[in-house]
Amino acid sequence: MLRKDVPKSVVKRLPIYLRSLDGLLKRDVEIISSKSLSMETGFTAEQIRKDFAYFGAFGTRGTGYNTSYLRERLLTIIGLDQQTNIVAIGAGHLGRALTRHNITKNPYVRIVGVFDVNPKIVGDRIAHVEIKHLIALPQVIKKYNVKVALLTVSSEGAQEVTNTLVDNGIKAILNFAPIKLNVAEHIYVHNADLTIELQSLIYYSSTGEEGDDVDL
Amino acid sequence: MLRKDVPKSVVKRLPIYLRSLDGLLKRDVEIISSKSLSMETGFTAEQIRKDFAYFGAFGTRGTGYNTSYLRERLLTIIGLDQQTNIVAIGAGHLGRALTRHNITKNPYVRIVGVFDVNPKIVGDRIAHVEIKHLIALPQVIKKYNVKVALLTVSSEGAQEVTNTLVDNGIKAILNFAPIKLNVAEHIYVHNADLTIELQSLIYYSSTGEEGDDVDL
Repeated sequence: MLRKDVPKSVVKRLPIYLRSLDGLLKRDVEIISSKSLSMETGFTAEQIRKDFAYFGAFGTRGTGYNTSYLRERLLTIIGLDQQTNIVAIGAGHLGRALTRHNITKNPYVRIVGVFDVNPKIVGDRIAHVEIKHLIALPQVIKKYNVKVALLTVSSEGAQEVTNTLVDNGIKAILNFAPIKLNVAEHIYVHNADLTIELQSLIYYSSTGEEGDDVDL
Repeated sequence: MLRKDVPKSVVKRLPIYLRSLDGLLKRDVEIISSKSLSMETGFTAEQIRKDFAYFGAFGTRGTGYNTSYLRERLLTIIGLDQQTNIVAIGAGHLGRALTRHNITKNPYVRIVGVFDVNPKIVGDRIAHVEIKHLIALPQVIKKYNVKVALLTVSSEGAQEVTNTLVDNGIKAILNFAPIKLNVAEHIYVHNADLTIELQSLIYYSSTGEEGDDVDL
């Protein structure tokens, strides 16, 4: 079911389909066509059918997809059928905001630890989660079998923390630190660098290029 | 100089080159080869030369690029040679963190307004910037000739705020609200949806796919 050759662009659309399906189920929509899903997501019906084909056919020609079944399948494919434990490193303003956001608004993940080295904030709480010293990181990763980390430390400390994360079994990092992290091939780093994003936007705001709201 | 046919992937690399050059200048590196820039950024030397070729040749074959000149050229191309005024809509936890981040750590932009509709927080300050009621938005956009907005409102209010932004001349939106915004073709929306990013990461953490740390 999990195929190694699924393009990254497809993987990035899966959570968007999932979100649409969550919304449709809330509105009690039991069956959905690829055309309606296209209107929901902004991707073409053809694109949607092609994306789903990577994981086997989900619908019956002419009758559309069963919303609930399709949602379950996507959850399994993405890996959200079981709750995912994650850790957050860095409890500055951004780290706190992201941690709080995930605790309160993301039902699929569970923040099992927030870490920092600043003695002034170690012991504080973000929602119900206590900020721990970085020294406790390996123990928490092991205990909760954590594979995914949010990284919001400063660029100075980011590589060292990354090494610790990887040494302790983390496989995927959402990196907010404004540096390129050096990691082994099998580790997945997504750079969510907000300054870079903003600078690309500024390019488009000044050139008046065509907009595009589906490129994540 | 500004070409309409520059691929989005190239535009996204420009700020990364800029950041490397900023770092090199701090270390007083006056001349840099595409090979060294490759080691700095993780992109291949060939890719770098190809990217720069979109905007005209910047270097002399065999002698490398003048760091300072290259940086100036990139600033102009991206549109950062003049300070860019931006507004932030939404002053919840994430909005505050992003606003503070840009005020303190992003020298190329100036947050000229932060807006919310919650009467409990209107009047508060984030660093030195006062949170204003959304009603004051058109006036601030006009006064500071703002073209770029950060959007961190809830999904419920996001489309309505977006319409207001576009009606008042905003050309580019960095959208953190978890919905697809409907905008005209000439408006550029970048969805920085952190839940979506995290879910893609979870996919990779569970499949053990090859990592890739240069795809922004």
